[in-house]
Amino acid sequence: MIAKHQATLDAAVQALHGRTFFAAFPENPSPEIYGADADVQGREKFAALRGQHFTELQQGPPEGWAGQEESPYEQAPLGIKYPFYSPDTLVKHAQGAFDEWRKVKPALRAALLTEALEGMKSRFFEIAYATMHTTGQAFMMSFQASGPHAADRALEAIAAGYEEQTRFPEETRWEKPMGKYSIALHKTWRAVPKGLALVIGCSTFPTWNTVPGMFASLVTGNPTIIKPHPKAVLPIAIVVAEVQKVLQEHGLNPCICQLGVDADDHLIAKELAENPAIKLIDYTGGSQFGDYIESLKGKTVFTEKTGVNSIILDSCDDLDKVAQNLAFSVSLYSGQMCTAPQNFFIPETGVKVGDTQVPYEEVVQKLAAAVTGLATNPKAGAHVLGAIQNPGTHERVKQLAFEGGRSILDAGSVDHPTFKNARTCSPSIHEVDARHVEQFSQELFGPIMLVIKTKSTQESIHLAAKLAREHGAISCGAYTTDLIVKEQIMDEMSLAGTPVSFNLTGGIYVNQNAGFSDFHVTGGNPAGNASFTNPEFVIKRFTWVGFREPA
Amino acid sequence: MIAKHQATLDAAVQALHGRTFFAAFPENPSPEIYGADADVQGREKFAALRGQHFTELQQGPPEGWAGQEESPYEQAPLGIKYPFYSPDTLVKHAQGAFDEWRKVKPALRAALLTEALEGMKSRFFEIAYATMHTTGQAFMMSFQASGPHAADRALEAIAAGYEEQTRFPEETRWEKPMGKYSIALHKTWRAVPKGLALVIGCSTFPTWNTVPGMFASLVTGNPTIIKPHPKAVLPIAIVVAEVQKVLQEHGLNPCICQLGVDADDHLIAKELAENPAIKLIDYTGGSQFGDYIESLKGKTVFTEKTGVNSIILDSCDDLDKVAQNLAFSVSLYSGQMCTAPQNFFIPETGVKVGDTQVPYEEVVQKLAAAVTGLATNPKAGAHVLGAIQNPGTHERVKQLAFEGGRSILDAGSVDHPTFKNARTCSPSIHEVDARHVEQFSQELFGPIMLVIKTKSTQESIHLAAKLAREHGAISCGAYTTDLIVKEQIMDEMSLAGTPVSFNLTGGIYVNQNAGFSDFHVTGGNPAGNASFTNPEFVIKRFTWVGFREPA
Repeated sequence: MIAKHQATLDAAVQALHGRTFFAAFPENPSPEIYGADADVQGREKFAALRGQHFTELQQGPPEGWAGQEESPYEQAPLGIKYPFYSPDTLVKHAQGAFDEWRKVKPALRAALLTEALEGMKSRFFEIAYATMHTTGQAFMMSFQASGPHAADRALEAIAAGYEEQTRFPEETRWEKPMGKYSIALHKTWRAVPKGLALVIGCSTFPTWNTVPGMFASLVTGNPTIIKPHPKAVLPIAIVVAEVQKVLQEHGLNPCICQLGVDADDHLIAKELAENPAIKLIDYTGGSQFGDYIESLKGKTVFTEKTGVNSIILDSCDDLDKVAQNLAFSVSLYSGQMCTAPQNFFIPETGVKVGDTQVPYEEVVQKLAAAVTGLATNPKAGAHVLGAIQNPGTHERVKQLAFEGGRSILDAGSVDHPTFKNARTCSPSIHEVDARHVEQFSQELFGPIMLVIKTKSTQESIHLAAKLAREHGAISCGAYTTDLIVKEQIMDEMSLAGTPVSFNLTGGIYVNQNAGFSDFHVTGGNPAGNASFTNPEFVIKRFTWVGFREPA
Repeated sequence: MIAKHQATLDAAVQALHGRTFFAAFPENPSPEIYGADADVQGREKFAALRGQHFTELQQGPPEGWAGQEESPYEQAPLGIKYPFYSPDTLVKHAQGAFDEWRKVKPALRAALLTEALEGMKSRFFEIAYATMHTTGQAFMMSFQASGPHAADRALEAIAAGYEEQTRFPEETRWEKPMGKYSIALHKTWRAVPKGLALVIGCSTFPTWNTVPGMFASLVTGNPTIIKPHPKAVLPIAIVVAEVQKVLQEHGLNPCICQLGVDADDHLIAKELAENPAIKLIDYTGGSQFGDYIESLKGKTVFTEKTGVNSIILDSCDDLDKVAQNLAFSVSLYSGQMCTAPQNFFIPETGVKVGDTQVPYEEVVQKLAAAVTGLATNPKAGAHVLGAIQNPGTHERVKQLAFEGGRSILDAGSVDHPTFKNARTCSPSIHEVDARHVEQFSQELFGPIMLVIKTKSTQESIHLAAKLAREHGAISCGAYTTDLIVKEQIMDEMSLAGTPVSFNLTGGIYVNQNAGFSDFHVTGGNPAGNASFTNPEFVIKRFTWVGFREPA
């Protein structure tokens, strides 16, 4: 098993340090790569699960059945019921599996988990349709984000965990010269797992945001309970089932990795999180619950919460290309991404394009036109925007208004070519006053673009950095042809713990983060305390303990 | 500067991963190594500082002068006054130095700090006498612990910080194949310091326990304020002065590293710790203040607090050698070490020695005889025991009694050959009932040995692990010739985050932790959340931030 996956693991570790392009799982859902029938079979398998009990898990007799997913494309329930276990039962199962799992060496754990990713790969299309009909993502994003990109992020966590646990010797001879003689000790070290782990998922990226913490906790020897968002269970349930299958096939307790769904009438995240046996918690979601998770005593916690992402417009070579790129970024999955830009800072003096200064209002109208052009493009609009996951988001976007601001573009509905009942919404654009910081200092989830007229690029940078420092940010886009301004943005945003993408045009967007290259979230501002996948993300999950005796 | 120290740094990084014996600073205070006059000069320099203002620091005009050190050997004040600065002033100075220091590349920071250790080395003897007359350590320990061993721990932190900050590329070209074309980005990363750092020192190991956090924060670009214990300032004041000298010589602001002493009439640690600009705190000392430090919001905190260290006696080859080794461990610096053993678990059935079972009472009396033998040895006793740092400790040892227990050996006074007025105390031994866990579940600082009669080695292991898990432990010694018992101890203590030394006899002791080989404190139990020096100790002090743009 170790030999089977060692090359993949070694390549992944190397990629982590080279940070050049690396992908173990192809992102293109083409028949040439995944097989001629893969798409149809995946769609059929997903269809067959609807209205049924999900019976793939190997966690013992269920205490009930629960499930409340509904498709944002159909605005109708999926009708899938998952086995329910109380938090106490889940914890007892996990405790029963701890000794077995912690005694498996890191290299074998890494190999078994990589094997499980192969199982996940065989179900990428099924996971894609499950993601589509829980999150509202369009098919292409559902496939890529929940399938290959998530699997690569999982492999990244496995590789980082494997590397960190094998970075110090298992044993060594220590010999201290004492003049005429020497003292020799035989020393050994163990990477000791912290205990039980909990991963709390979100509704919009049910695998991508869950697998890093899940595989990081597992590879470091901690039995892990996955508590998905009640509206987005199926994609990660399939992944958990694949992990359990590999564990069971290798004679290990499947409860090393469990799915713990909420009951239909009560949520279980708090009870799980507060259980003293739970030592590690990964959380993706809103800041209020995230702050509560971070405040728990005696836990090591990894969070990705909310933030406000900024675009700083100073100068560029081709404003049309910039507007198209930004329109795509704000429209992609209707802005329901933690990396989606929200605040667009534009100086009242406009944007310098080549040698000319394009007036502020013209820049704003170009952005609005690009957004409208994309949303109303019959070949692209619906496939970029997808559907709105949550009816609440939909309502909020439609009713949004800012005192003292002005509406530049109203949210409109988008006709979906396949799903007539899809919950859709084109982006709305509002102009808000730079002095009303409170109006743009919170994350407004969904397809919402705020244009903020500033006195100058200096004020734009100052506001973007201040918001990131005080309210968090996960991405930042900047357009400038001025090297001094560029260095200033890098310096200010680095102190705000926020990565910056400069001058993106064409087919690459500020929202996108590449596994093995881009650290996702820095951990350096209120948007989250963890990062996919820096060494800290894995080493906090185990303890180095040493032993010595006379040699 | 970088070239000058690169070989040392590279060797130190390599040593961290080999974990074999490595020392950059010789621990033997011999004239052959340090020069014929080094000892005399060091003693004279220390004598010359007494009763004077300490004027070496380069932190601007003082707001006052403060100092309240006294020698445990003379029970008289040292009379040294240090420049006092209010917390606000210290923070303002540090903020003024931040931009300068964070923009120095990690490799140059590491070289400058290594250069400062060379300066420290030139003053090892002066530091040794300063340590002796503040902590009460005997000369040899004062020299080794505060000099070469501390400098090696500092170098370890520098090396780990340098390695972690250079572990990912500064820049790379990322090129993603997209079928007929590819997308290429130029990416760069910066290791961004967290902000201002504070290091709070303790009274017994003023440099050894301070320099790891101090040099870890400095090498990662954080201006650092050292707040020593008011009774043990001089040893670390000399180190700070040497760092400031190197900074000043290289055109950098000396306030990158400041000494912040308490005023004579009020302590400043809380006010410093709560200042919002302070982002990193290293703390060594009691658990109550340590728990307060850990509870502060918005800070990254590294603690070493109190714990209860156990000795498990099961079986051995030579009980006399074991008793001598343990008597030394409990006597070394009169038990005022965080690694000193306190609880000695002995089965009521006695200890198996070779093929015979030595009865419990005989084992206890052997330990008592060995302790008495060492304390009354005119050539060794005073030089191992040193003096008692704190009059409170002295009183407590003399008055200690346990309900339901019995006194096995009373604390006695020890005549010091040089200092007639030395505050000394030979170890006391008490037997306490294994059922009265509350009597031995706290750290009893000083030369105190508790003998706990257990039903069996199983109960000994159970209690030692439970105490470590619930109350913390930094070391554990175990004596067993049974491989199954040994593995059980390793397993139980590893889950309690406690390193174990097995079967030590001769010239190596459970109290000793070697730089570059033994992780000091694991971070895995309540005795502390940090470890000298694992990667976590340095990577939590900075944030990786990435930047990208079309290539």
